[in-house]
Amino acid sequence: MRNIKLTLAYDGSEFAGFQVQPAVRTVQGELMQALATILAEKTRVIGAGRTDAGVHARGQVVSFKTRARIPIDRIPAALNSVLPRDMAVWQAEEVSLDFHARYDATYKIYRYLISLDPTPSPFMRHYSWRLPLKLNLEVMQQAAHELMGQHDFSAFCAAGSAVKDKVRTVQCLQVVAERDLVLIDAVADGFLYKMLRSIVGTLVEVGRGALTPEEVREILARGDRSRVGPTAPPQGLNLWQVGYNHAVAAHDTPGSIGLTLPWGYVKISL
Amino acid sequence: MRNIKLTLAYDGSEFAGFQVQPAVRTVQGELMQALATILAEKTRVIGAGRTDAGVHARGQVVSFKTRARIPIDRIPAALNSVLPRDMAVWQAEEVSLDFHARYDATYKIYRYLISLDPTPSPFMRHYSWRLPLKLNLEVMQQAAHELMGQHDFSAFCAAGSAVKDKVRTVQCLQVVAERDLVLIDAVADGFLYKMLRSIVGTLVEVGRGALTPEEVREILARGDRSRVGPTAPPQGLNLWQVGYNHAVAAHDTPGSIGLTLPWGYVKISL
Repeated sequence: MRNIKLTLAYDGSEFAGFQVQPAVRTVQGELMQALATILAEKTRVIGAGRTDAGVHARGQVVSFKTRARIPIDRIPAALNSVLPRDMAVWQAEEVSLDFHARYDATYKIYRYLISLDPTPSPFMRHYSWRLPLKLNLEVMQQAAHELMGQHDFSAFCAAGSAVKDKVRTVQCLQVVAERDLVLIDAVADGFLYKMLRSIVGTLVEVGRGALTPEEVREILARGDRSRVGPTAPPQGLNLWQVGYNHAVAAHDTPGSIGLTLPWGYVKISL
Repeated sequence: MRNIKLTLAYDGSEFAGFQVQPAVRTVQGELMQALATILAEKTRVIGAGRTDAGVHARGQVVSFKTRARIPIDRIPAALNSVLPRDMAVWQAEEVSLDFHARYDATYKIYRYLISLDPTPSPFMRHYSWRLPLKLNLEVMQQAAHELMGQHDFSAFCAAGSAVKDKVRTVQCLQVVAERDLVLIDAVADGFLYKMLRSIVGTLVEVGRGALTPEEVREILARGDRSRVGPTAPPQGLNLWQVGYNHAVAAHDTPGSIGLTLPWGYVKISL
């Protein structure tokens, strides 16, 4: 028996989310089907993050156990030959039998893209939140700074979550812009349900002057969900990376690696 | 009566091409329908270039005549409010009544994107030709140089063209690369049917060592279509700009403006 860890990318536009559900197209469902084809056995797939419908991933991590004898280095090409074209496996590695893609994850990096372009771009429609506004980046950055560190993020957790402990540590929350693009990068030990989309919606309220950084600090301290901004739409969000080390590696920090998005290389000079 | 020139972008993935045809979804068809809605009259739309199914445009130009009184600066937003989301009008301007989007075009810029990434990217599948190969860029650039200038491009014209005069002037044909992306930029006074896709297919043959730059010169000189490379697939192609000046403006030359693609800002340092 081997335990295999896969790193995969997907365009979330045509998926009803990561998690398998009856009668709809899901990332986990497509992956299980592809694994059944190449392994000739049924496997259980554990994902690091349950991305919602429309949310993309450049670096989702999953694991599965198998008795099949396929060489590890053949797995990505074998899977990519049967997977639909809006998914691709980048890497496969053997991990210890007790490795768990979700519980063992020590941090995750998500990136959120906003387009301020007054003209809607046909090419960005599935990959950004189009907001034809002026946003004040400086106050957004100040508000982002208030959210960094270890906090109870109840205010930023959408209804429908069964999680009790809402304390998370946000190691990095960064707002950068170039031309009409605003990119929000977040590194945390974990994210509550729709937490980053709630944060993005709130930062946008700050950017357009409807909230101040001080009010964001209060909302966080009081757990006041009634005052957070609207949840940002899913298509701007991308699960960029899942880490399993105990510290965020220096080269993993957004910004230092250059902000290279998977939908074309988006390079933003910091 | 006014004559209006529009600049528009579209994601060609879900269109059966530019030109209106019965029972299929076309760019011209959708545009005529949107114009009928906002002008409350039927109009004829003339396009600068008839892009094929799957080919994108960042800078297609069309013109139409109308008696409607809508202010010119309201036209883009009015059209974008009724157009499908894979099309967008960037600009509208009034032009003289004898302006013709196709006949008056003095040059066109097309860009073609190749992805050499060994892993198929879900995000680039509709916007690049995936070629998991090593390509020798230097010989591709030499072959591109052979094709520049005024030539009879019969060898690079696909069957099905009714055009008799196959002499065209290619002012610029440039091959640049960054990481796993290869971008081929072409500026010409006009392009024959599938000409750039034929050229791209041929340059790829050169890049992988199946043809030499000298052989490309011979193919061009002899009009020998039997020896050109396979026509590159449509999804890598983008109609970038249509010019109506008698010289290509300096800032229009690819490279000097930075290679900024519409599906995310792709900046390639030259």
